Amino acid sequence: MAGCHQNLQLNPATRSEAIARLRSIKGHVEGIIRMMEVDSVYCVDVIKQIRAVDGAMVKVGDIILRSHLHDHVVTAGSRGDAGEIIDELMEILKYR
Amino acid sequence: MAGCHQNLQLNPATRSEAIARLRSIKGHVEGIIRMMEVDSVYCVDVIKQIRAVDGAMVKVGDIILRSHLHDHVVTAGSRGDAGEIIDELMEILKYR
Amino acid sequence: MAGCHQNLQLNPATRSEAIARLRSIKGHVEGIIRMMEVDSVYCVDVIKQIRAVDGAMVKVGDIILRSHLHDHVVTAGSRGDAGEIIDELMEILKYR
Amino acid sequence: MAGCHQNLQLNPATRSEAIARLRSIKGHVEGIIRMMEVDSVYCVDVIKQIRAVDGAMVKVGDIILRSHLHDHVVTAGSRGDAGEIIDELMEILKYR
Repeated sequence: MAGCHQNLQLNPATRSEAIARLRSIKGHVEGIIRMMEVDSVYCVDVIKQIRAVDGAMVKVGDIILRSHLHDHVVTAGSRGDAGEIIDELMEILKYR
Repeated sequence: MAGCHQNLQLNPATRSEAIARLRSIKGHVEGIIRMMEVDSVYCVDVIKQIRAVDGAMVKVGDIILRSHLHDHVVTAGSRGDAGEIIDELMEILKYR
Repeated sequence: MAGCHQNLQLNPATRSEAIARLRSIKGHVEGIIRMMEVDSVYCVDVIKQIRAVDGAMVKVGDIILRSHLHDHVVTAGSRGDAGEIIDELMEILKYR
Repeated sequence: MAGCHQNLQLNPATRSEAIARLRSIKGHVEGIIRMMEVDSVYCVDVIKQIRAVDGAMVKVGDIILRSHLHDHVVTAGSRGDAGEIIDELMEILKYR
């Protein structure tokens, strides 16, 4: 799939922001692992932390999605790859 | 909140499985970070990986949820804390 | 499935509230159909209305879910059908 | 909002298909109401029907979304309203 769009790239500013957020998410996941190493941990407290990480992942996905819409989707009509751009967009939105 | 249920704990088998899955998720997040350090990375490829991590987080949340239902929710009626158990369950399901 | 739980029923108060909400949702769907019969309707305005109906459906589902947790799930341990109650609960939560 | 895009319209073919699906969804909601008028109805059976309607609503939303992407979003760059198109798209995706 990546090969189909060899000249479309995630812009540097969004890339930096997303990397910073993913590093923070990685830290959050490590925190949940440490929390779960305590015998007395309560199920619901863990699920709340998992939901928080989910929310942060959706947020970083949205930042990249907005950047993709701006850099690649709204210009697909004039670039001539609208069909392909729409198919892959519908595919990633399905899992949302 | 944890203090309210000082005698309710995540069972050891579920805890081990969830920790193993969270370690794998952490590795997946690290993989996305490395993938994003390449200049030519394509937005949609990153979003697909983010959706995959989301799916894995939902799955680990479901494993803990099933264990919570089994160990604590179906016995809440006889234990006498049904109101509290239901409120916190509806709260975590809201963010699903 | 219904046959398995011939003695478990949705309580009358929740049933009345859910029916009232579903009647209102039906009216909302009729409103969207009328809105779409106008030639100049804009896609995003329709999608917003669809999302509103979705939100209202999730809400009525949550009202019935809370009632189910209260009337049937927290008592499953003492009633002796916990395994079955948990399986069907996880099944309906999957589609959430 | 509709006023901002007075010249962007849902195309007739998608409109017809969406109306047909919404009429079917309305029939499904009526079926759930009738099902709930029976005293012995079981909570989980109702929730399953509600999830089915939810799924059908998401599907009709996706059909309109795909049409919107094709007719209005991929051409926004050349039309010159990309900022506005992206903002309203992110808004409707948030509720997904």
